[in-house]
Amino acid sequence: MTRQALPSVPDDPSDIPTSATPRVRVRRHPERAAYDRQTIDAILDEALSCHVGFVQDDQPYVIPTVHARDGNQLYLHGSPGSRMLRVLKGGTSVCLTVTIHDGLVLARSALHHSMNYRSVVVLGTAEEVVEPTETLNALRAIVEHIAPGRWEDIRPPNDRELRQTAILRISLEEASAKIRSGGPMGDEEDLSLAVWAGTLPLRLLPQEPITEERVPNHIAVPDYIRDHRLNKHGRP
Amino acid sequence: MTRQALPSVPDDPSDIPTSATPRVRVRRHPERAAYDRQTIDAILDEALSCHVGFVQDDQPYVIPTVHARDGNQLYLHGSPGSRMLRVLKGGTSVCLTVTIHDGLVLARSALHHSMNYRSVVVLGTAEEVVEPTETLNALRAIVEHIAPGRWEDIRPPNDRELRQTAILRISLEEASAKIRSGGPMGDEEDLSLAVWAGTLPLRLLPQEPITEERVPNHIAVPDYIRDHRLNKHGRP
Repeated sequence: MTRQALPSVPDDPSDIPTSATPRVRVRRHPERAAYDRQTIDAILDEALSCHVGFVQDDQPYVIPTVHARDGNQLYLHGSPGSRMLRVLKGGTSVCLTVTIHDGLVLARSALHHSMNYRSVVVLGTAEEVVEPTETLNALRAIVEHIAPGRWEDIRPPNDRELRQTAILRISLEEASAKIRSGGPMGDEEDLSLAVWAGTLPLRLLPQEPITEERVPNHIAVPDYIRDHRLNKHGRP
Repeated sequence: MTRQALPSVPDDPSDIPTSATPRVRVRRHPERAAYDRQTIDAILDEALSCHVGFVQDDQPYVIPTVHARDGNQLYLHGSPGSRMLRVLKGGTSVCLTVTIHDGLVLARSALHHSMNYRSVVVLGTAEEVVEPTETLNALRAIVEHIAPGRWEDIRPPNDRELRQTAILRISLEEASAKIRSGGPMGDEEDLSLAVWAGTLPLRLLPQEPITEERVPNHIAVPDYIRDHRLNKHGRP
């Protein structure tokens, strides 16, 4: 039931990461694993936000935040005073995980219930971005990640705002994807039961845009918002 | 802009956790924080899955998995051989985080872009569940978490399946919620710009159920699947 819709050979061999280290190798259901950059990139790009794991005083923390990918780099941003950014700037180990829900898998027996999903786990360390061009590129990537087309319309950051913003970079070198798709499995012993089984596909979908009250009437909702395709790859 | 739709006083004072420890206190945008169990429980119950953070060999890992709450306990399940369950059974510190996407916040300037979301961070340690009644209750809670009404229809776990399944329990004692809602903020200096601003609400929505091919024609899609309300609290 492994989905292989995406080709496994990147266009550019330089984009192949040394990703399948033992730390990121998928051990449970290895048939659901993918290590090629096209699969990994597509999931990272579609997921609206990520969960960042880091350790402080022996306690793991998992914090949701928006990420963006630009080539081989993942970018995060935030207040320089936030706990996550302060800890990560110190060069500690980090885990960045994204998960997209694709559906509920409803089997005839309790323990064959599952979910269809696509997830990526990235391990590495974060570095603070200080170079102005990379800083601006990272912020553009983050805005374009949540709303492609938005950057051209808006006011870019000014110097004061840039001083109040920290940008972190994580290299996409050690990562794996895990994908579960298709219907219930392992239900053979229960076929005689009079129970419905199947999947309930899920999609994160935009609803009607809400215009902020101070927007003049002559400014319409932009097409890139009205036609926003969150599931960028047109998955059913 | 903090949403306070849910009352902050639990029905039962015994359900008030000692949650607002410094470790889980929300420092950035404290006005978005909530520490009452009704708010925390509603977010945990609505989120389909969680991200579990743990540490192995000084490396944090963040793994997506399905959770369920039963009273003051959170339950996870999995193969006894999985890395996550093996590490957590050792009594190590864990962080369990859930995040629900409610919308994109599109401001007039780049750095006022944001997301509307509801998240919960739980800190604690996991214990393995070994008592048969609690094991079965936990599995029922997990199935009912993803599809309320499902448990009554399906074959419960047999002894062989139970031996191949590990259940972990995390007490809901140290937790906080963070909620961002409403439109763009801090845009006052940019009101003269001819830029649309507002929010694009998001919802995770079920699509048409897909019946597994071996289900006999006379077995219909159950109402609790056809009418599945993922956004359990009817949020707009």
